[in-house]
Amino acid sequence: MYELGVVRRTISRADRAATDRLAAFGSATVHEALGRLGLMNPAIRPIYAGARVSGTAVTVLLHPGDNWMLHVAAEQIQPGDIVVAGLVAACSDGYFGDLLATSFTARGARALIIDAGVRDVKALTEMGFPVWSRYVSAKGTIKATLGSVNVPVVCAGAWVSPGDAIVADDDGVVCVPSARVAEVADAAALREANEGAKRARLASGVLGLDMYGMREPLAKAGLRYVD
Amino acid sequence: MYELGVVRRTISRADRAATDRLAAFGSATVHEALGRLGLMNPAIRPIYAGARVSGTAVTVLLHPGDNWMLHVAAEQIQPGDIVVAGLVAACSDGYFGDLLATSFTARGARALIIDAGVRDVKALTEMGFPVWSRYVSAKGTIKATLGSVNVPVVCAGAWVSPGDAIVADDDGVVCVPSARVAEVADAAALREANEGAKRARLASGVLGLDMYGMREPLAKAGLRYVD
Amino acid sequence: MYELGVVRRTISRADRAATDRLAAFGSATVHEALGRLGLMNPAIRPIYAGARVSGTAVTVLLHPGDNWMLHVAAEQIQPGDIVVAGLVAACSDGYFGDLLATSFTARGARALIIDAGVRDVKALTEMGFPVWSRYVSAKGTIKATLGSVNVPVVCAGAWVSPGDAIVADDDGVVCVPSARVAEVADAAALREANEGAKRARLASGVLGLDMYGMREPLAKAGLRYVD
Amino acid sequence: MYELGVVRRTISRADRAATDRLAAFGSATVHEALGRLGLMNPAIRPIYAGARVSGTAVTVLLHPGDNWMLHVAAEQIQPGDIVVAGLVAACSDGYFGDLLATSFTARGARALIIDAGVRDVKALTEMGFPVWSRYVSAKGTIKATLGSVNVPVVCAGAWVSPGDAIVADDDGVVCVPSARVAEVADAAALREANEGAKRARLASGVLGLDMYGMREPLAKAGLRYVD
Amino acid sequence: MYELGVVRRTISRADRAATDRLAAFGSATVHEALGRLGLMNPAIRPIYAGARVSGTAVTVLLHPGDNWMLHVAAEQIQPGDIVVAGLVAACSDGYFGDLLATSFTARGARALIIDAGVRDVKALTEMGFPVWSRYVSAKGTIKATLGSVNVPVVCAGAWVSPGDAIVADDDGVVCVPSARVAEVADAAALREANEGAKRARLASGVLGLDMYGMREPLAKAGLRYVD
Amino acid sequence: MYELGVVRRTISRADRAATDRLAAFGSATVHEALGRLGLMNPAIRPIYAGARVSGTAVTVLLHPGDNWMLHVAAEQIQPGDIVVAGLVAACSDGYFGDLLATSFTARGARALIIDAGVRDVKALTEMGFPVWSRYVSAKGTIKATLGSVNVPVVCAGAWVSPGDAIVADDDGVVCVPSARVAEVADAAALREANEGAKRARLASGVLGLDMYGMREPLAKAGLRYVD
Repeated sequence: MYELGVVRRTISRADRAATDRLAAFGSATVHEALGRLGLMNPAIRPIYAGARVSGTAVTVLLHPGDNWMLHVAAEQIQPGDIVVAGLVAACSDGYFGDLLATSFTARGARALIIDAGVRDVKALTEMGFPVWSRYVSAKGTIKATLGSVNVPVVCAGAWVSPGDAIVADDDGVVCVPSARVAEVADAAALREANEGAKRARLASGVLGLDMYGMREPLAKAGLRYVD
Repeated sequence: MYELGVVRRTISRADRAATDRLAAFGSATVHEALGRLGLMNPAIRPIYAGARVSGTAVTVLLHPGDNWMLHVAAEQIQPGDIVVAGLVAACSDGYFGDLLATSFTARGARALIIDAGVRDVKALTEMGFPVWSRYVSAKGTIKATLGSVNVPVVCAGAWVSPGDAIVADDDGVVCVPSARVAEVADAAALREANEGAKRARLASGVLGLDMYGMREPLAKAGLRYVD
Repeated sequence: MYELGVVRRTISRADRAATDRLAAFGSATVHEALGRLGLMNPAIRPIYAGARVSGTAVTVLLHPGDNWMLHVAAEQIQPGDIVVAGLVAACSDGYFGDLLATSFTARGARALIIDAGVRDVKALTEMGFPVWSRYVSAKGTIKATLGSVNVPVVCAGAWVSPGDAIVADDDGVVCVPSARVAEVADAAALREANEGAKRARLASGVLGLDMYGMREPLAKAGLRYVD
Repeated sequence: MYELGVVRRTISRADRAATDRLAAFGSATVHEALGRLGLMNPAIRPIYAGARVSGTAVTVLLHPGDNWMLHVAAEQIQPGDIVVAGLVAACSDGYFGDLLATSFTARGARALIIDAGVRDVKALTEMGFPVWSRYVSAKGTIKATLGSVNVPVVCAGAWVSPGDAIVADDDGVVCVPSARVAEVADAAALREANEGAKRARLASGVLGLDMYGMREPLAKAGLRYVD
Repeated sequence: MYELGVVRRTISRADRAATDRLAAFGSATVHEALGRLGLMNPAIRPIYAGARVSGTAVTVLLHPGDNWMLHVAAEQIQPGDIVVAGLVAACSDGYFGDLLATSFTARGARALIIDAGVRDVKALTEMGFPVWSRYVSAKGTIKATLGSVNVPVVCAGAWVSPGDAIVADDDGVVCVPSARVAEVADAAALREANEGAKRARLASGVLGLDMYGMREPLAKAGLRYVD
Repeated sequence: MYELGVVRRTISRADRAATDRLAAFGSATVHEALGRLGLMNPAIRPIYAGARVSGTAVTVLLHPGDNWMLHVAAEQIQPGDIVVAGLVAACSDGYFGDLLATSFTARGARALIIDAGVRDVKALTEMGFPVWSRYVSAKGTIKATLGSVNVPVVCAGAWVSPGDAIVADDDGVVCVPSARVAEVADAAALREANEGAKRARLASGVLGLDMYGMREPLAKAGLRYVD
């Protein structure tokens, strides 16, 4: 159950160096390294293509049509944070635009992940402030009801605790629990290291069937080749 | 109730200068200035990113799978118009492509807003003819049933009368009643003027909490800070 | 009913020259030339804008969450092929990424059409390997269950037989039966040839109403002009 | 454009006798009789099966999350009315429950059509108060912002003026402009009269192919029978 | 690729006795017995709860907004058939109502499965003619374009050949290839036979964990019990 | 972040008497009494109309296409529990049918809430075992991957801890944190008590405008009555 009306000022952020390493691996590799957990619903999409970031979560809990808590959250941002906003009920309104992005940038935020809508997409794109959202909408919000900052939230089906590591790119958004970031970064690096050699072999025309040794298990499973 | 089989040749267009000012403000600011009305459903999206236009509405009422009236509408276009097409029942077909866009451009149209599908998206993008639509589909239409031109239409949930001002960008599409365009442009300009100074202050690290004087109302509402 | 556990090595590909001609016409023109058949559901979208390809179909039948057969399919790819993957039940997982794209490219594949999700979208875009899919998702798949390669499949509502010609661009994806490719390419060329002259006339300000002789049928249908 | 903050007390209701006749024909027949216009989006569904009503529209314009105007509307209801509620922006909240239904019933309302959510579905079903809505949701609303009563509204894509006739059943909801109700009721009666005889013939085994004289046009269109 | 303009009069229907046995097993058991194939998309729903039927498929291929071929199909129906209608492109119109249901009933049809909309739902329910459809809509169709009867069709993602066995109930619709009906009915009977004893044991309080011998594999997979 | 491979045997269930009182109030009243929190997404719907239950949550975490943990959960059920199942990624499969319902009933479960699909809907309805789910699907699941039992889960956007109280009816599903159940039941009782008198007054023709004293605030907000 959500806690309302609370701002937690002291949170335990995931290890900075390990968190920063995650961006280069990307969401797909990190998701695998984490054991296929923590992926947000694919309906959360970037507002422009090509961004890839990782950072530590400052979480926000919002009411439908009300972005008051995003202003409260700004004060809690530290350099390297990514703001992650969940809602107590679905809403497509545009909660976030270029003014808030300016403020978040000044505080050192790297991105916003929000299970609702945003606006000023053209300006955000020009600023290079990446946002992953469920909707884009010109419809603004009011500032009237208390939510919370830095309490655990559900964002697009994923459970995010303040301080967790977030990695986001064109493939989606993954949340890594702060206690596991170093281990996951190592596992992701291992996966990545293996991929370079594989890529070269596949590019040279070697088939995955041979490289992965799939022919025998396929035959055992009963695969038949016919002409 | 819709009027079918009618083309109104004489419509009262919104003030040209005021209408032309709207594009620079964008759909989000205009929507606020209008009192949060007139926004089309966010399912209407631009076929390419970055376009921002305003203009006066030439309206079209279409049947599912039939684009005959878009040809009839072409003749009613004057420079500075935006064609707004509503449907009597939902349809995802591609009603509009590069030939119609060539004709609309020759008549001076600035954009098309359509509550259905369009095609030739690559060519439209290369031509720089902006379109906001609900779908993209290669499926064409026939020319068999009468709709109307320049009657009031519902487009993506918004009521649009011929001559109303339209503003469209990456954030969505807003319809401003012709009688209110000057007033709305002034209100939007006022909002915009205030935003420049705010943006500079936020960029310098001032918090919205302080700039907007939110600390007191938040405390009154019961917000608690904990460590 | 689908055949499972079968790889057909010998398929009859559509005429190469005719198939290669289809890309230039695009999906909309080919769909018309084919008599308005063969279009996949518009929910299948390109992962990046601007690609336009045609090729011969190597088909794959996949289970939810399992991409084993894509590796099997790689061996059956010949230069000029497009892999078309249908599923036995809906799934949004990311079945395909940059490693498989490297392998498919080495085999001469021109594109992938898949009624599911893909990942590594940024890398695929940089490689210039075009994909049309229903979803984008960082969630990977396993390799455990047999599907088939080069059996007829349903992909996004369209029935695709191995060897059929596929044309795909920003407007969608169309499947042309192999036996009809030459005839369809000719019909498409004829449509295209007519369009150049029409485009010039429309650009000069001639109305479709006059160019297509629509005024009389519109009047007969009862269209009324009012002031 | 919507008018906000206005309650129109005097509206011109469609002819009572003609309006009351519409229920027996049902929405499908009335939609045909009206020339295939006025149908709301099929996403509007009855909260329980089997209801069939017609009546005159009292219209309400609502804001997202705010049902204040439904209370204002209650006072304007006369026996035989159906309340039709449109929204200025989409919302799934439960705007209406058993208390409002009790009040509406006391005023003589026959039904509610609402382009949003409702709640207390079990109680409404037991009361026999029919509702057609886009959603069912336990989430309530507040009473803070002015909309309007008895101004034209868009409800689920249909344009409804106060006083128009509404017919609703399991197949959907149709709006008939007040000026055309008598004519439409007559046309619907004619269609219905023809259907009784047809139904008997079809039940006896006569084929539509023969009864409607379709064999010749089918043959002309090129239909081929093969064994 | 679809064949248009063809009516196949002679089809090979699945074994009648085996087909008739399928209804009692239901769609879930038959789907398992068939190896998890042949299930239509779950968006296809019954228009009323509680019906359960099986029969042999008479297939129909329809164009958007045009139900002409349903009349042509009526003549091809034999007692024990179920009409299965696919579309060449998506459409939500109401293709089928009480008159066609009367005709289909007179011919001996047991149900309609249609990847589009239907209407007269109240009358169909009272007649007890079961329909599985994607939509319900009061919007009717025209009779102008040739499709086909008794050619293979795609219906809600499933490939159906004329004569295949269909089983449909509240859980969905499954298509069984005619050649496999006897084998599938036997496999389903076997599954069903096992279920009676299992049901009794579970009802007596025996846990699935014990009855299915799951404790050891769960422990091997690493399941930990904590207090 | 989810904990996988864990079964918590000892959970602290919400107060039984207070939990049992919630059913009579229903989800809408409880949602209000809780301060508008805890409501699951309205896409979760009952498989049959009219059920209304409350109970204590036994939670289950499931993988797509795998219902193994539902069998593990059965052993943890105590009389008065409601099983609440969340997924690590979206899936429409039918996870639950009449055999599991028989087992759950034998253990004393009152209902299942699942953010996925179920099957055997007809049998479940006849048994009177209520289920709220996102989908209905005949497609079954396997038993291969560990999830967890009695860990906190996200179900349809709501955060549910083991032992929380659940109330579900035709309007939706609400989760009440175990620590607040008594307080919420009292608040709900208070709301309910007030409603009886209000209902009687509204039924007698008193308007909400007068009963709630709305006329003055409406006038202050600027509402204008016109004729």
